[in-house]
Order: sequence, then C-alpha cells, then structure tokens
Amino acid sequence: MDKLVPADIKPTFGELEYTNEEKSAIGNILEQKLGANEVAFRTGAGSQSVGYLEAWRAIELANEIFGYDGWSSSVINLSQDFLEGEGQRFSCGISAVVRVQLKDGSFHEDVGYGTADNMKKGLAIEKAKKEAISDALKRALRLFGNRLGNSVYDKEHMKANQAQQKANQATARQQTFNTNQTNQV
Amino acid sequence: MDKLVPADIKPTFGELEYTNEEKSAIGNILEQKLGANEVAFRTGAGSQSVGYLEAWRAIELANEIFGYDGWSSSVINLSQDFLEGEGQRFSCGISAVVRVQLKDGSFHEDVGYGTADNMKKGLAIEKAKKEAISDALKRALRLFGNRLGNSVYDKEHMKANQAQQKANQATARQQTFNTNQTNQV
Amino acid sequence: MDKLVPADIKPTFGELEYTNEEKSAIGNILEQKLGANEVAFRTGAGSQSVGYLEAWRAIELANEIFGYDGWSSSVINLSQDFLEGEGQRFSCGISAVVRVQLKDGSFHEDVGYGTADNMKKGLAIEKAKKEAISDALKRALRLFGNRLGNSVYDKEHMKANQAQQKANQATARQQTFNTNQTNQV
Amino acid sequence: MDKLVPADIKPTFGELEYTNEEKSAIGNILEQKLGANEVAFRTGAGSQSVGYLEAWRAIELANEIFGYDGWSSSVINLSQDFLEGEGQRFSCGISAVVRVQLKDGSFHEDVGYGTADNMKKGLAIEKAKKEAISDALKRALRLFGNRLGNSVYDKEHMKANQAQQKANQATARQQTFNTNQTNQV
Amino acid sequence: MDKLVPADIKPTFGELEYTNEEKSAIGNILEQKLGANEVAFRTGAGSQSVGYLEAWRAIELANEIFGYDGWSSSVINLSQDFLEGEGQRFSCGISAVVRVQLKDGSFHEDVGYGTADNMKKGLAIEKAKKEAISDALKRALRLFGNRLGNSVYDKEHMKANQAQQKANQATARQQTFNTNQTNQV
Amino acid sequence: MDKLVPADIKPTFGELEYTNEEKSAIGNILEQKLGANEVAFRTGAGSQSVGYLEAWRAIELANEIFGYDGWSSSVINLSQDFLEGEGQRFSCGISAVVRVQLKDGSFHEDVGYGTADNMKKGLAIEKAKKEAISDALKRALRLFGNRLGNSVYDKEHMKANQAQQKANQATARQQTFNTNQTNQV
Amino acid sequence: MDKLVPADIKPTFGELEYTNEEKSAIGNILEQKLGANEVAFRTGAGSQSVGYLEAWRAIELANEIFGYDGWSSSVINLSQDFLEGEGQRFSCGISAVVRVQLKDGSFHEDVGYGTADNMKKGLAIEKAKKEAISDALKRALRLFGNRLGNSVYDKEHMKANQAQQKANQATARQQTFNTNQTNQV
Amino acid sequence: MDKLVPADIKPTFGELEYTNEEKSAIGNILEQKLGANEVAFRTGAGSQSVGYLEAWRAIELANEIFGYDGWSSSVINLSQDFLEGEGQRFSCGISAVVRVQLKDGSFHEDVGYGTADNMKKGLAIEKAKKEAISDALKRALRLFGNRLGNSVYDKEHMKANQAQQKANQATARQQTFNTNQTNQV
Amino acid sequence: MDKLVPADIKPTFGELEYTNEEKSAIGNILEQKLGANEVAFRTGAGSQSVGYLEAWRAIELANEIFGYDGWSSSVINLSQDFLEGEGQRFSCGISAVVRVQLKDGSFHEDVGYGTADNMKKGLAIEKAKKEAISDALKRALRLFGNRLGNSVYDKEHMKANQAQQKANQATARQQTFNTNQTNQV
Amino acid sequence: MDKLVPADIKPTFGELEYTNEEKSAIGNILEQKLGANEVAFRTGAGSQSVGYLEAWRAIELANEIFGYDGWSSSVINLSQDFLEGEGQRFSCGISAVVRVQLKDGSFHEDVGYGTADNMKKGLAIEKAKKEAISDALKRALRLFGNRLGNSVYDKEHMKANQAQQKANQATARQQTFNTNQTNQV
Amino acid sequence: MDKLVPADIKPTFGELEYTNEEKSAIGNILEQKLGANEVAFRTGAGSQSVGYLEAWRAIELANEIFGYDGWSSSVINLSQDFLEGEGQRFSCGISAVVRVQLKDGSFHEDVGYGTADNMKKGLAIEKAKKEAISDALKRALRLFGNRLGNSVYDKEHMKANQAQQKANQATARQQTFNTNQTNQV
Repeated sequence: MDKLVPADIKPTFGELEYTNEEKSAIGNILEQKLGANEVAFRTGAGSQSVGYLEAWRAIELANEIFGYDGWSSSVINLSQDFLEGEGQRFSCGISAVVRVQLKDGSFHEDVGYGTADNMKKGLAIEKAKKEAISDALKRALRLFGNRLGNSVYDKEHMKANQAQQKANQATARQQTFNTNQTNQV
Repeated sequence: MDKLVPADIKPTFGELEYTNEEKSAIGNILEQKLGANEVAFRTGAGSQSVGYLEAWRAIELANEIFGYDGWSSSVINLSQDFLEGEGQRFSCGISAVVRVQLKDGSFHEDVGYGTADNMKKGLAIEKAKKEAISDALKRALRLFGNRLGNSVYDKEHMKANQAQQKANQATARQQTFNTNQTNQV
Repeated sequence: MDKLVPADIKPTFGELEYTNEEKSAIGNILEQKLGANEVAFRTGAGSQSVGYLEAWRAIELANEIFGYDGWSSSVINLSQDFLEGEGQRFSCGISAVVRVQLKDGSFHEDVGYGTADNMKKGLAIEKAKKEAISDALKRALRLFGNRLGNSVYDKEHMKANQAQQKANQATARQQTFNTNQTNQV
Repeated sequence: MDKLVPADIKPTFGELEYTNEEKSAIGNILEQKLGANEVAFRTGAGSQSVGYLEAWRAIELANEIFGYDGWSSSVINLSQDFLEGEGQRFSCGISAVVRVQLKDGSFHEDVGYGTADNMKKGLAIEKAKKEAISDALKRALRLFGNRLGNSVYDKEHMKANQAQQKANQATARQQTFNTNQTNQV
Repeated sequence: MDKLVPADIKPTFGELEYTNEEKSAIGNILEQKLGANEVAFRTGAGSQSVGYLEAWRAIELANEIFGYDGWSSSVINLSQDFLEGEGQRFSCGISAVVRVQLKDGSFHEDVGYGTADNMKKGLAIEKAKKEAISDALKRALRLFGNRLGNSVYDKEHMKANQAQQKANQATARQQTFNTNQTNQV
Repeated sequence: MDKLVPADIKPTFGELEYTNEEKSAIGNILEQKLGANEVAFRTGAGSQSVGYLEAWRAIELANEIFGYDGWSSSVINLSQDFLEGEGQRFSCGISAVVRVQLKDGSFHEDVGYGTADNMKKGLAIEKAKKEAISDALKRALRLFGNRLGNSVYDKEHMKANQAQQKANQATARQQTFNTNQTNQV
Repeated sequence: MDKLVPADIKPTFGELEYTNEEKSAIGNILEQKLGANEVAFRTGAGSQSVGYLEAWRAIELANEIFGYDGWSSSVINLSQDFLEGEGQRFSCGISAVVRVQLKDGSFHEDVGYGTADNMKKGLAIEKAKKEAISDALKRALRLFGNRLGNSVYDKEHMKANQAQQKANQATARQQTFNTNQTNQV
Repeated sequence: MDKLVPADIKPTFGELEYTNEEKSAIGNILEQKLGANEVAFRTGAGSQSVGYLEAWRAIELANEIFGYDGWSSSVINLSQDFLEGEGQRFSCGISAVVRVQLKDGSFHEDVGYGTADNMKKGLAIEKAKKEAISDALKRALRLFGNRLGNSVYDKEHMKANQAQQKANQATARQQTFNTNQTNQV
Repeated sequence: MDKLVPADIKPTFGELEYTNEEKSAIGNILEQKLGANEVAFRTGAGSQSVGYLEAWRAIELANEIFGYDGWSSSVINLSQDFLEGEGQRFSCGISAVVRVQLKDGSFHEDVGYGTADNMKKGLAIEKAKKEAISDALKRALRLFGNRLGNSVYDKEHMKANQAQQKANQATARQQTFNTNQTNQV
Repeated sequence: MDKLVPADIKPTFGELEYTNEEKSAIGNILEQKLGANEVAFRTGAGSQSVGYLEAWRAIELANEIFGYDGWSSSVINLSQDFLEGEGQRFSCGISAVVRVQLKDGSFHEDVGYGTADNMKKGLAIEKAKKEAISDALKRALRLFGNRLGNSVYDKEHMKANQAQQKANQATARQQTFNTNQTNQV
Repeated sequence: MDKLVPADIKPTFGELEYTNEEKSAIGNILEQKLGANEVAFRTGAGSQSVGYLEAWRAIELANEIFGYDGWSSSVINLSQDFLEGEGQRFSCGISAVVRVQLKDGSFHEDVGYGTADNMKKGLAIEKAKKEAISDALKRALRLFGNRLGNSVYDKEHMKANQAQQKANQATARQQTFNTNQTNQV
C-alpha cells in the first residue's frame, strides 16, 4: 500500500495545550482500570478465556475521555502478509499500524492484526483489513492508560473482573427469573 | 494508484478553533446513539440482520453536525485487491483508505471495502471503487461518535433499534390501513 | 499517469474565511434537496429508473452557490483500468479521483468512473476519461450537501421527485396541446 | 512525460484578491450563456450536430473576462495513449490535463483529448498533442461558468442556439443577396 | 530529458505588480489583432495557405509589450517522440512544453512540435529540437492575447489579412514599377 | 514495511520544558531500582531464571511517571526476518524499532524481537509482531532509568530481588495457609 | 547527466530590482538590431550564407549590456543524442539546455546543439559538448532582444547587413590598396 | 532496514544550553577515569583479559551525568551482515550505528556489533540485534569522556584497574572468610 | 558520480552586494582583453597555434579581481564518457560541469573536457578528471569577461597578441645576447 | 548501508560562537605539535616504524581542547569493500567517512579504513568496522591542527619524537634498574 | 558510495563575515607564492622533477591562515574507478571530490586522485582512498591563492624554487661539514 500523503493539511491540532484541570481530570480517569461490565471475553488458544475491550467501546471511551475533537487516528501502514486459497475458501492475514494522537501532540503507534479463514476472497480481505485497523487502534489507545485497555493485560485484575462478571450474570439471571416469576403473577 | 499530491494548496481549514459553545453542542449531538428510524438493515452472513447507516445519511448527518465547510475528506488510498473473471462476469475487490478531518485539524482515517460479482468488467470496478470509498468514509466518520455510526456496532443498542423499527413499521402499516379505510370512506 | 506537480503556485485560495452571513446563506441552500425539475433520469441495471444530476448542472449549481472563484477542482488521479478490443471496437474503463475545495480550505475527494464500448480506440479513451472526471467531480461536489447531489441517493425523496416530474410532464404536454389548440385558433 | 518542475518561481499570482466590484462584474458575465454567434457546430457521431466553442475564442473570452494577466494555465499532464500504423499512415491518441488558475488562486483542472488518423507520424503526434491541450484548456475554462463554455453542455439551450444561428444565416444570406442586388444597381 | 532543477535561485520576478497604467496599456495592445504585414503565410496540408507568426517577431513583440525583463520562458519538457532512418536520411519528431511567465506571476504553458525529414542525424535532431521549442514558445505566448498570435487562429480575420497582404504586395509592386520607371527617367 | 509518513502533523509535544520540580521529582523516581514485587521471572536458556518487566506494567509505570500525555511512542521499523513452515506449523521472527519520546523532546530508540513457533501462519505473524513492538517499547523505556527497566539488567540487584520474591511467596503461602486455617475455624 | 544540485546556495541575485534609468537604458540598447560589423556569416545548407553571432561576442555584449554580475547562466541539461563510429572517426550529437537569468530574476531557457564528424572519440565529444552549450547560451540570450541576437533571425535585416558588410569589405580592400600604394611611395 | 522517518517531531531538545555550572560539573565528572569496581572483565582473543563497561551501567552513568532527559539515542542503522546455518544452529552478525545526542545538540555516532553462534534462527537474530545496538550505544557514549568508557581503551589504566580489582577480590574473600569464621564463632 | 549534497551549509556568500566602487572597478578590469604576456599558445588541430589561458593564471586572476573570498566554484558534474584499452595503454574522456559564483550570487556554469591517451589506467583517469575540471573552471570564468579568458576566443585580438609575443621573445633573446656579450666582457 | 536520517533534530549546536579568549586559547593549543610521550609507534610496511596517535588519546585530547559538548561526530558513510574467505578465516576491508564538527559549525570530513585477516566472519567485520570509524575519526580530527594529529605526518618532527622516546625509555629503564637496585638494598 | 546526509546540522559557520582587517591580512598572505623550503619535489613521468605541497603542510598553512575554525572540508564524493588483481597484488584507482569552505561561505570544490599498485587488497584501497581525499583537499585549497598551492603550477616560479632549494641544500651540507669539522676539533 502506497500512502498518499495529504501534504497540504497543516492542522493546529496537535499543538493545543491542556489546562491543568483538564490534565488532572483526564489523568485520573485513565488511571482507573476497566470494570467488570466494560470488558468482553472470548475463548482464546487452549480454551482459555481472554478478556478484551470491544472496538466500539474503546472508541466511545476515547470520545468520552478526550472529546470528539481531542484525538486523531491515522493509518500508518496496512499490508497484506498472505492471501491463500482458491474458489470460495480463502485465508488471509493483514497487519496495520495505527497512530493515535492527542490534541497536544502526544501520540502512540502500535500494530494490529486481522485474519480470515475459509471465506470468499473479497470478504476475507475486507474482514482482515477492518479487523487489523480496529485492533491497531485499540492497541495504540491502550498505551494512554489502564482505562483505555492497558488493564486488560493485567492478569490478576482480569481474573477478578471475570469472577465479578460471572457473579453479575448469575445475579442478573436470578433477577430475570424473579422478574419473570413476578410477571407471571 | 499513485497519488498526485496537490502540493500547492495550503488551507487554513484544519487550523480553526471551535468556540466552547460549538464544542459542547457538537459533543452532545455526537454522544447520542442513532435512533430506530436512522438505521437501515440488510441480511448479512448467516441470514443475520445487520444494521448499518446509509452513506447519503452519514453525509447528511456530517453536514448537519459539522456544517458544510466544517469537515473535509480525502482519498488516502484506493487499491485493487483482485479482479478476476472473463466475458461479462467479473468479480473484484477494492480497498480504500479515507481521511476525514474537522476544521480544527482533528482527523480519523479508516479502511473501506467494495466488492462486485458477476458483472461486466467496467461496472464491477466502478461499483467496487465507489462502495469502497463510501464505506471508508462512513468508517472514518463513525470514529467521531455514536451519532455518526459508532453506535451501529453496539449490539445491544441495535437489537433494541431493530425491535423499535419493526414496531414502528407495524404501527405505520396500521396507520396506512386506517388512512386507507378513512380515505375509502 | 504521472502528476506533474506545479510546485510554484501558492494560492491564498483555501485560506479565505466566510462571513457569518455567507456561511448561513450557503448552508441553507445546500440543505435543500434537489427539486423534480433539476434531476435527470436514465434507465439503469434491471430497467430501473436511476435519477442523477447532469454534470453541467452540477457545475452551474456550484458556481451559483459558491461563486465562480469560490471553489476549485483538481484531478488527483486518472488511471486506465482496462482497454480491450481490436479494430474499431474497443472497450475501456477509466477511474478518476477529483478533489473539490472551497475558498476556506474545506475539501472533498471522491472517485468517478467512465466506460466506453465498441468504439474506435481514441474515442473510447476520450469518452471514458471525460466521463470519469465529470463523474468524480459530481461525487465530490455531492459531499457538500443535498443540493449538490447528495439528495439523489435518498431513495424516498427520488421516488417523490420522479412522480412529480411525470406529473409535470403530463401537465406540460397538456399545456402544449392547449397552446397548440389555441394557436390553431 | 517527465515534468520538469521549475522550482524556483514563487509568484504572487494566485494570491491576489478581487475587489467586490470586479467580483460581481466577472460573476455576472460568467453566468450568461453563450449566444448563437459565439458557438460553432460540427457533425458528431450519428450525423448529430454538436455545438462547441472554438479554442481561440475561449482564449479571447478568458482574456476579456479575467484580463491578460488574470489567469494562468499549466500542462499538468501530457501522455500518449497509443501510436499505431506504418509508413505515412499513423493513428494516435493523446491525453492532456490542464490547470487554469485565476489570480486569486481558485483553479480547475480537466482532461482533454486529441486524435489523428492516417497521417505521417510526426504530423499525427503534433496534431493530437496540440488538440489535447487546447481541448483540456477549454474544459478547464468551462468550469468557471456558462459563458466560458459550460452552457455548451445544456442541450436545451444549444438547440435554441442552433435554431437562432440558422435563422441568422438565412437573414445574412438574404442581406447579402439584397446588397448584391443593390450593388448591381 | 532529466531536468536539472536549479534549486538555488529564488527570484522576485513573478512577484512584481503592474501599475494600473501599465496594465491597461498592455491590455489594450494585446487585444488588437495582428495586422496584414505582421503575419507570414506558408502552404499547409491540401495546398492551403496557413498564416503564422514568425518566432523572431513573436519574441520582438513580447519584448516590446512586456519589456526585456518583463517575461520569462522555461523549457518544461523536451522529449524525442521518434528518430528513424539510416545513413544520411533521418526523420525525427520532438515535442517541447514551454512556460512563459510575466513579471507578476501569471503564466501559460503549451506544447510545440518540431520535425525533420531526410537529414543527417545530428542536423535532424537539432532542427526538430529548436523548432519544437520555438513553436511551444509561440503557442504559450499566444495565450496572452490576440496580438501575440491568438488572432492567427481566427479564420475570418486571417482571410481578411491575407487579402490585404496581397493587395499591399500588388501596390508595392506597382510602386516599385513606378519608381523604376521614374528612376529610368 | 513502507512507512507512511503523516507529514501533516506538527505537534508542540516534544517542545515543552519541564519545571525544575517536575524534573527532580521524575529524576528521583527513575533512579530507583524496581522492587521485588514489580518484576516477573521466566525460565530462559539453560533453565536459568530471567527477570523481566511485563509490558503492561512498563506502560503503567511510564504513565505514572511521565503522565498520560507526557510520552509518545512510534514504530520506527517493523520487519519480518523470516517466516517458515507449512500447513498449521509456521515459525517466524520479527524485529521492531520503537522510539519513545518525552514531552521535552528527549528520546530513545531500541530494537525489540518477537518469535512464534508451530502456529498457524496468521497467528504466528500476529504474535511475533505484537511481541516485537512491546519488547522494543520496553527496551526504549528502560533507557530512561532504572525504574523503567534498566535495573533488570543489573545481575546483582536481580539476584536479591528474586530471593526477596521467593521469601515473599513463602510468607504469602504461609499467610494463606494461616488464613485457611483460620477460615476453617 | 545527473545534475548535482548545489542545494546550499541562496543568492540574492535574481531578487534585485532595476532602477528606471537602468531599465530604459538597457531596453533601448536591446531593441537595436545588430549592425553589419557585428555579425559573422557561414555557408549553411544549400550553399546559402547564414548570418550568426559569434559566442564570444554574444558574451561580450551581455557583459556590456547587463554588467559582469548582472546575468547568470546555468546548464539545465546536457545530453548525448548519439555517438557512433570506430577508431579515429567518430560522429556525435549533443543537446544542451541553458538558462540565462538577469539580476531581477527574469530568465530564458533554450536549447543548443553541437555535432562532430570524423574525429577521435574524445575530441568529438568535447567539440560537440562545448558547441552545444555555447549555442544554447546564445539562443537563450537572443530572447532578451534584437541586439543579443534576435535580429539575426530577421531575414530582411540580415540581407541588408550582408550587403553592407560586402560594401565595407570592398571599401576596406580599396583603402588597404590605397595605403599600400601610399606606403610604396 | 528501511528507516521510517518520524518527520513530524520537532523537539527543542538539542537546542537547550548548559549553564556554566552544569557545564563544568559535567566536564569534571567525564574527565575521571572509571574506577576498578566499575569495570567488568571478560576473556578475549588469546585468553587475554579484556575490560569493558556493562551496558546497563553505561546507561545508569549517562542518566546520572546528563539527567534522564539530558541525552537521547537513536538507531541510525541496523543491518544484517550475515545469517547462516540450518535447523537449530544459526550464526549471524549484525551491525548497528547509534547516535547519542545531548540536550544542547552535541552528539556522537558510532558502530556496534552483535554476533550469535549455534542458536535457533530467531534467537540468534534477536541476540545479535540487541547486542549490536547496546554495543553501539556504549561506543557512542564513550566519545563523551573517560568516565563514559573512553578510559577502558587506555591500556595502562586498565592494567592498574585489573590489579586493583584482584586485590579487592582477595580482600573481599579474606573478609568473607573472616566473617564466616566470626559467624562460626 | 552521485553527488552528495552537503545539505547543511547555508552560506551568506552569494547574498552580499558590491559597492558601486567595487562594481565599476571590477567591471573595468574585466572588460580589458588579455595582453600578449598573459596568454599561452599550443599547437592545435592542423598544426594551428591555439592561444589559451593557463589554469593557474586564471585562478590567480580570479583571486586578484574578485578577492580570495569573492568567488566560489563547485563541481556540478563529473562523468566518464569512455575508458578504453588494456594493460598500460588506456584512453579516456571525461566531462565536467563547473559553476563559478560571485559573492553577490551571479554565476556561470560551463562544461570542460579532459582526455588521456596511452597511459596506465589510473593515471589516465586522474589526468582526464583534473583536466576536465580545470577546463570547465576556465570556461565558466571566461563568461565573466574578456580579462578572464573571453578575449582568447576573439581571433583578431589573438593574432595581434601572438605577433606581439613573438616580437617580445625576439627582443628578449636579443637582450639576453646583449647581456651575455656584456657579461663576457 | 542506508543511512536513516534523524530528520527531527535541529540542534543549536553548530551555531554557537567562540569568545575571542576561547578562540585564541584553543588555537594556541592546536598549533603545538604532539610531544614524544603522546605518540605511539608501530611497525609499518618495510619494517619501518610508523608513528600514530591512539584513538582513545585523540578522543581525550578532543574533549580536553573543545570540551565534552564542544565537538560532535557523525558516521557519514560505512561501506564494506570486500569480505572474502570461508570457514573460520575471513578477510575484510571496510571504509568509513566521519564528520567532526565544532560547536560553531566548522567541520571536517575524512575517510578511515579497517581491515581484518584470518578471523571468524563476525569478528572480522566487527574489527574492520570499528577500526574504520576510529581511523576516520582520527583523520577528521587531525585536520583541526597539529596537536590533534596533523603533526604525525611531519616526518622531520616524528623522527625527533621517536629519538626522544627511545631516550626516555632508556632513562626509564635505567631508573627502574636503579630503583630495583635500591629496593634490593 | 551513498552519502548519508546529516540533515540536522544548521551551522552558522559559512555565514560569518570577515572584518576588513582580516580580509586584507588574509588576502596578502594568500597572494604570496610558496618559498623554496615549503615545497617538496618528487620524480614524475619522464624522470621530471615535479614540485608539490605535502598534505600536512597544506593543512598547517590553512589553519595558520584561516584559523582552526575558519575553514571546513567535506567529502562530496568518493568513488572507486577500478580495483583489479588477485592474491596479494591489487591495483586500484579512486576519485574524490572535496569541498573546502571558509567561514563566510565562499568555497571551492575539486577532484583528487589516489592509486595503488601491487598491494594487498585492503591496503591498496586504503592507500588510494586516503590519497584521493588528501589530493582533492589540496587541489580545493589551492584555488584560494598562491600560498595554498596555486603557485606550484607556475612553472617559472617552480624552476626558481627548485634552484634555490638545491642551493640551500648545498649550503646546508657545507655548514654540516663545517660544523662536523668544528666538532672534530
């Protein structure tokens, strides 16, 4: 992928200072680890439960914390590692590097990855490319603090979170059951 | 696709500050999730109903929220992943990266994808290229907030939306029926 | 196509601010959807009637709305996707990316497409290249608002427009008939 | 064609503002559609009469409207699509992209096309290259308004123009006849 | 031809404004069409008489109108389209793009062409290259107005010019005859 | 990997000075070596216990010490050294160079490495790329001081740390045992 | 020939204005056509006498008219079109593009040509390269006015010049004869 | 290794002046040669004892002497000279060039080298790359003075250091022995 | 030869103005043609005596006229046209382009040539390269005026010079003879 | 070796002026030739004794004379000329170009060379690269004056130095002998 | 040799003016030709004695005349023309272009050459590269005046110098003889 440099845009974004109040408010929020209801879980390698932050939620959190015009993101790189298969069954792997920058110029870049298996060629590439960029966006965002996803990598904290989530679900099922019972009344 | 850098344009767009009033007004709108009548649904993989924002509506929303000269968009990349077939039956897959920038310089880039199947070569490429750019535009816009499409990825919210839409349609059919009945009177 | 960067031109165009009056006047016009007499219709795939804005009219509208020196357009990319055939019967497909920029620097880029079938080689390329650029110009312009073409993609609105147009034509034919009758008197 | 960037010229041309008087005067002229005596007609595909603006006239109009130092033009691209044949019979097709810029920096780019058939090689290339640039110049100029050629694409207006022209010619022939008769007296 | 950019020259030429007097004086001159004694004629394709402005005269006119330091010209491109033959009989075709710029920065670029037939290789290239650049210089100059050559393309005007020239020559021959008669006296 | 330079971002980040208080406070923290409970241990080559800092903890420490907007990181290079294997068993090795910069512009770059063995191709690349960048980030951070990881390479200090950690674990197990005993009461 | 850009020189030469006196004095000189004793003649194609300005004289004239530091020249391009032959008999053709710039930044570029026949390889290249640059220098200088060589291309003027020169030579021979006669006395 | 230039960072780091006090304090420290307890020894070629400074200690010294934000380091080059072998037994050699810059802009660059023998491919590359960069960092640091490693190359001084170290170790063993004896008491 | 641009040097040399006195003094000197004792003669093609300025004298003259820091020279290009032969007998031809610039920025570039015959390879290249640069330096210097070598190309003047030189030598020999006679006395 | 330009560092180093006192103090030191005890000798070609300055001492001298932040060095080029051999016996030759710059911007560049014979591949390259850079550093430093190594090339002075050194060693041996004798007493 | 541009150094060196006193003092010294004891002689082609300036003396002179920080030198190009041979007997030829610049920005570039015969490969390249750069440095220095080496090319002056040197040596031998005689007394 050749990047087509939009050489003609010279934003002041990235040159704006935070007030002390903004700074400490944002700092406090970012220090907090994600709560049990903010993390999703999927089954990873070895049937292990792996906690993660959904992309849409990371975006919502970033907008809440930095403001809708307080952070920018750019696709630094998007490259296809492999595309194999034939007919309706293609596998593919795509890497992306995304940069997230705050309005005062601080920024982080990280890599993301997307894969697809046994799909039509176009759908496979589409899925992998979008996954790769969303993944890279999340990994770059997490470098700003626990609340934007860094806490997902703290194994102790995540074990506690998962336990809490299971407890919540049990409670919720009980409440639903109670409500149903009540409703049936 | 080689990008032909228009090196001679140095806009002040991207350097303009929002007033506090503008900022909080826009922020409030962007936080709101899309309502039931603003989302369209199509049948995705596995006969699943997938909610999405139509491109023209995303553009209309962006113009409403940011103003006609409050946002810019550029085609960062447009590349053909594959073009296969012969005669009148071509398939093709195209990737696009689009950048959306606000007047104060904050911006987002994301990838979009377009595909075509069993079409004449020219039409296939045309469809896929236009789809790819519209898709990328929408994905870049969604990063600015729920109202510009991020809420489409919140599964809970979308289930509620779809239920509401079905209810609305039922009501509408009933009203049409009533009106017809009335008109027939 | 290698772009030959005219590196020596540094316009202030793109750095000029709108007054509040200009801004709201232009904003109001752009919000309005195109009326029945401003849209053309052609038969698309599946004998479906597809509404569109003619290029010359889009240009006239842009000049009316932004002023003759209020908008610029540049050919960001022009590339031949395919050229096939022999003798007097060539088919070809061309893609263009056009950027439209307003005097305050806000801008949009989009892709356009042109095709030709069964024509002499030179005419085929000429037709497809010109079509591609006009198409891209129109798609970039539409991103500025409903009145510059975005409303053409609102299916509900277009159905109403088409109905209105048919009604108008019927009326017109009737009036012509009446006039003729009168003239014959 | 490699463009040889004359990197050492930094004009203020393109940075000069119009006065309000100039602006509205020029705007008014550009809105007017071309009259019957300003348009030429040639037989196009299908023996159809196609109206067009001759290049020298477009240049003269541009100099009248913008002033001799009020507009600039540059050859953004000039590329040979094909050159075929042997001996004294060559065909060739050439594309050009030309940019026209006004003194305040607003500009338009468009493509033009030139072809040659059955000519000596050198003459064929010469004809096609010159045609392509003149054509591109005209298409770029037309984007500034009806009077610089946009009205040529308004089919209704052109039908009226052609009818008027035929009427004028009939009148002229009659006057010539009358004059001749008078002179013979 | 690789252009060797002389990156170290930053002229103010191209940044100088015309006074109103200069501007209207130059404008008036440029509007005037070339007179009968300023145009040369050569036999073109189909034994047709084709009027043209000799290069040295175009240069002299440019120096008269703009001043010796009021215009600049640069060779934007010089490329060999073909060189064929053997021994002492070579044919060649060369294209040039020349830019002419006025002291206030307005400029025009156009293409020129040079050919040679049946000449020694070196002489053929020399003739074609020099012709191409002189031709491009003339075509770029003509874009500034009628007096610098645009009027040569106005067929009506040229017919009148040619008729006038023939009349002048007849008169001149008569005067010479008369003078001779007188001298013989 | 081609890096796509986001040429349009000109942050003031990297130009901000520390106050003397900030400077000495941060300096004091960075001088301190990591404590026993902040270091993890893994079995390295030769069954040797190798101490290391987990990536998430290094990130948390960096945010604590420099503030969430006090440091930036960029992916200077990401390149695949090898990818071998077939079917479901791929090995791969990836190098990354990461730069970490503080808000006053001081910065460090270092290399990181990621490997994968016997994994599906996509997972292997994903694991190795993410590992490489996290490793490079940690190595660049350690250059700022003992507390950000430099002390991990001080063998004497690490031996003491490991001994302390084992002692802590023994104490913890004893406490758990005591607690269990108590709980059983 | 790769040009090695001396990127480190930023002269004010090219930015200096002429006083009105200088300007009109130089303008007056440049308008004058070259006199009979300033032009040389050589036998051209078809045994025709071709007038030209010797290079050293053009340089002397440029120094007289503009001052030794009032004009600059650079070799924009120097390229070998062909080099053929063997042993001691080589032919070669070289093209040069030279730019001449005045101290106020106005400039002209033109092509020159050099050839050699039946010479040792090194001498052939040397002769052709030096000729090409001198020729290009002269052609670029002539664009500044009649006195710097443009008048050489005015055929009428040159015929008169040649006649005058022959008359002068006849007079000179007569005077020499007379002197000799006198001296013999 | 392609370096991906982070073109958007413009630090003031490198533009900050030292006060006279800072300057002489740092200068005095850097003049001092490393003491016996600060240097490590390894067996080099020919069983010769070679003194060296451990990387972590060089980093700690740099942070002590220049402050944590008083020096920067960048990887100017990282290139693989060779990678050979098969299976689990690879050898490899890697060169790095590192630049160390102080806050006032003075800087040094030097080369470092890393090798690996008989290791798995990934581990071999990892070891060699990390070694190369650490080695280059140390060599660049030593150019700032004796205390940062230059004294390691003064053979006389190192002989004295090694003797002192052996004496210290003997003393230490004696003390341990004494202590043990005492403890046994 | 790749030129390695020393991009970091930004001299004010080339931006310094001459006082009026300096200017006219230098101008007067440069106008004067070289005298008989300043020119050397060598036998050229056809046993013709060819006058030239030795390189060391041209340099001495330039230093006398412009001052040791009043002119600069750079090697714009140095390229080998051919190198042929074997053993101890090589021929070679080298071209150089040199730029000479004065302290006020005016400059000239010209080509020089060096050849070698029947020499060892290294000596042949050395001789030709040094000759080429010295020759180019002289040709560039001569463009500043007669005294720096332009007068060498004025054939009339050189014939007079050579005659004068022969006369001087005759006088000198006579004086030597006289002196010897006297000395013998 | 691709150089990875750290484009983001803009030091004021290189822009700092020396006071007159600094300047004359440094100048005086640099004029002095190296004394007998500061030069080392090795056996060169033909068993000749060749004097040289050890690298560590040149670095120490540079730090003493210019201050630890008064000079910078950069690796301008590092390239392998050859690497030959097999198994454990490789020879290699490496060239380096190093630039040394003082704080006021004056600088020198020179080449250095490193070789290795009959070594393992990695060690050979390592030795040659480090040697090459140290050698280039020394050669660049020597250009600043006699004391930084230029005097090593003054053969007369070195002969005197070597004689003095031998005398010193004789004296030293005598003193050691005397001391030993005394100690034996 | 790829040059690695150290793009980050922006010295004021090259922008410093000389006082009038400095200027005339330096000018006077540079005008003086080198004396008999400052020139060395070697046997050149044809057993001819060729005078030259040793490199170390040219450097010493440059430091005396311009000051240690008054001149800079850079390696503009270093390229291997040939390297031939086998075993221990290699020949090689290397060209260098060096630029010498004074503190006020005036500069000169020239070529130098180095050769080696019948040497080990590494030594041959080393000798030739170092010779080439020293030679180029000397040739660039000589362009500043007679005293820096230009007088070496004045054959008359050198003959006188050599005669003087022989006379001096004779005198010296006589004095040594006398002294010896005296000493023997």
